[in-house]
Amino acid sequence: MGDRPISTIFSVGTELTEGTILNTHFRFLGAELKGLGFFTRKAVQIPDDPDIFREELREALRASGLVIVTGGLGPTSDDLTRETIAEVCAAPLRFDQAIWDDLVQRYAARGRSIAQTNRKQAQIPSGFSVLNNRVGSAPGFCGVDGACTVMALPGPPAELEEMFLREALPLLQTRFFSSRGAAVEMVATAIMIPESVLEQALQEARGSDAAPRWSTRVAEDRIVWTLRGSPRRRQRRVYSALLKRFGPLRIREGDVQPSFLPYRILSQRRETVAVAESCTGGLISKLLTDIPGSSRVLWGTFVTYSNESKIRLLGVPGEMLQGAGAVSQEVVSAMSQGLLEHTPADLALAVTGIAGPEGGSREKPVGTVWISARYRRGAHLCQRFHFPGNREAVRRRTAVAAFILAECALLGTDGQLEY
Amino acid sequence: MGDRPISTIFSVGTELTEGTILNTHFRFLGAELKGLGFFTRKAVQIPDDPDIFREELREALRASGLVIVTGGLGPTSDDLTRETIAEVCAAPLRFDQAIWDDLVQRYAARGRSIAQTNRKQAQIPSGFSVLNNRVGSAPGFCGVDGACTVMALPGPPAELEEMFLREALPLLQTRFFSSRGAAVEMVATAIMIPESVLEQALQEARGSDAAPRWSTRVAEDRIVWTLRGSPRRRQRRVYSALLKRFGPLRIREGDVQPSFLPYRILSQRRETVAVAESCTGGLISKLLTDIPGSSRVLWGTFVTYSNESKIRLLGVPGEMLQGAGAVSQEVVSAMSQGLLEHTPADLALAVTGIAGPEGGSREKPVGTVWISARYRRGAHLCQRFHFPGNREAVRRRTAVAAFILAECALLGTDGQLEY
Repeated sequence: MGDRPISTIFSVGTELTEGTILNTHFRFLGAELKGLGFFTRKAVQIPDDPDIFREELREALRASGLVIVTGGLGPTSDDLTRETIAEVCAAPLRFDQAIWDDLVQRYAARGRSIAQTNRKQAQIPSGFSVLNNRVGSAPGFCGVDGACTVMALPGPPAELEEMFLREALPLLQTRFFSSRGAAVEMVATAIMIPESVLEQALQEARGSDAAPRWSTRVAEDRIVWTLRGSPRRRQRRVYSALLKRFGPLRIREGDVQPSFLPYRILSQRRETVAVAESCTGGLISKLLTDIPGSSRVLWGTFVTYSNESKIRLLGVPGEMLQGAGAVSQEVVSAMSQGLLEHTPADLALAVTGIAGPEGGSREKPVGTVWISARYRRGAHLCQRFHFPGNREAVRRRTAVAAFILAECALLGTDGQLEY
Repeated sequence: MGDRPISTIFSVGTELTEGTILNTHFRFLGAELKGLGFFTRKAVQIPDDPDIFREELREALRASGLVIVTGGLGPTSDDLTRETIAEVCAAPLRFDQAIWDDLVQRYAARGRSIAQTNRKQAQIPSGFSVLNNRVGSAPGFCGVDGACTVMALPGPPAELEEMFLREALPLLQTRFFSSRGAAVEMVATAIMIPESVLEQALQEARGSDAAPRWSTRVAEDRIVWTLRGSPRRRQRRVYSALLKRFGPLRIREGDVQPSFLPYRILSQRRETVAVAESCTGGLISKLLTDIPGSSRVLWGTFVTYSNESKIRLLGVPGEMLQGAGAVSQEVVSAMSQGLLEHTPADLALAVTGIAGPEGGSREKPVGTVWISARYRRGAHLCQRFHFPGNREAVRRRTAVAAFILAECALLGTDGQLEY
């Protein structure tokens, strides 16, 4: 805890306390506040009940330097965040004409007329300032009660996250950390590095200094980390230490999604990829086509889940499947070769492996995966992996590794990927 | 709120308040407690800090009939749930030989020897009873402080959920709802029905009665709902009303995963499926191969994302793509026909559509999807859909609808699926 300012987070909504929807705000705000330098003493979900909210809010205002409230800003009668904050902070609601004009205009732009019940959304507590909402309609607001900063943010995660990063975060940096150079931040991505390993590496790289601090956001295919609270050169030192330790394939500057690595290059070159998936069963394709506009890049995919489809669709010799086995360098190499022969694609990407829980053996345990990335006018990279984890984890790791090897083949760099 | 007993939930762990991991307990427990008949007045995340926990716990014991604490039961020094509950409830920890023997045995079964630090996990507050953990090592416990029932459950979601459903739930039913026949429950699945529509339909089906109550669990591809707290015949009446309203394709008894619908039939018949995916880009295949052992059922998949791959891999005529367009009855039908010609599979499943955000037109807006399910020795079902939502939602809904049409084609039933 030390000398860190203390924060309390509230999420308001009966749909949360009754478990109808999953609350992702605590993870997002918890990580961001940690990265800024706050100590979050509690994060509380409460139903749409003014009595409970009033009592909790009073306690939090006494005990915290920052209170963030999410949700309950909509136009329906359930939504009570505005009223309760106004009451507890003794800051009566005032109608803000500028907010209203903006709301009317937004509705008009979508060809809809605004209901009078929405007037409620143009009210904010007196003395509070507006936090603009660029994604949805309800604006947030921020003010001060005694020694405590109070912020209200909208419930929908996309609106909340955008508003926090763009409007709230700079404000908090100035108010709480102005003397510590907190405004400088650096975003980076770790790929195929477990959470605990990354955390330890960051700690070792920082050494005994108090800064930089970091927040991490764990996604399915990567961890995005943000360094804050120290001069840029110290952040660069930490980044360089990680780069040196894990190599340039797994540490990237900025927020880098693995599927974008080959996509971006193919898209720039106006080239295409064909994919042959065995153990991943369509996941590589699914991730590539999550990107809007990927139809220009993905020529097509064969999910050759059975031996027979490997033979018939890709021309893998039956004797090879019998001899070396479906999970082998020979077969994965024949699969990518088959792709180049059967399609006009510029890049061929093939994977075969044992995702489990069944199918493992002593020589080829569950998690054994072969990946081949073959660029028509360039390199052929072929590598074996032993991925830990269950079926889902093995499949996900295979897809991520395939994207990195594909990037390496396209760039002509050596793709020996450690894991 | 009414006369419902009041519950408070705690999740203990700095990894939660710092946003390192996502807390799914509040959704699970919130929904289960609602289904049982509790009113959850708050759900609180706190860091591994005994002072904060002590204060919060005292307040909750005064204000609730039930307090559930999750996490903080591990053997490390951070884990303070056991000690804090013992202290606040004035129930000193006692060493439980039976728990210890069980722990030693579990470790031995996995070929490991147990550390003495694990002895801590064999301690529970005096007067409390043990809640067995069949998934992991840390047992939970349950006792009474004044008028309040106190439960401690382990942090890992799989352990928590198993322990709650098997050990805690029956106990809560007896203690809080014994007179209301709460022990009878019925599980059902809603497929392709929005959350709010299902909720309203359940309310209408129940009418003015107080029971049955329900909890819902919203998964990506379905909503699983549990009816509780009334005689079985009244639960059946609610279920029948929903069945009548939404039809037998979208309302199912038990927890039914859409991808299992065709999988189960194909698996029983030892038959195979071949898939041609356009807008879903591999998602149908990915979901099918999430099922371990699906290699016996999925012959193979063509992700024909480009027109050229539809022509070359499936034999769709180029003129047809020019004339009717890639998203048309003619093309989807030619795709499934091509699958039957180019593979030995028994069932052919083809989809083509516009997932957005680009590619829509006035005649074929974003969300337009054609699905064809063709059984080699039986029915050919072909249907058009207009799915709402963003790219991800359209793709997910397409996959779910495809599984239902595949089931219908296999069973020879009429597959006109309303949406």
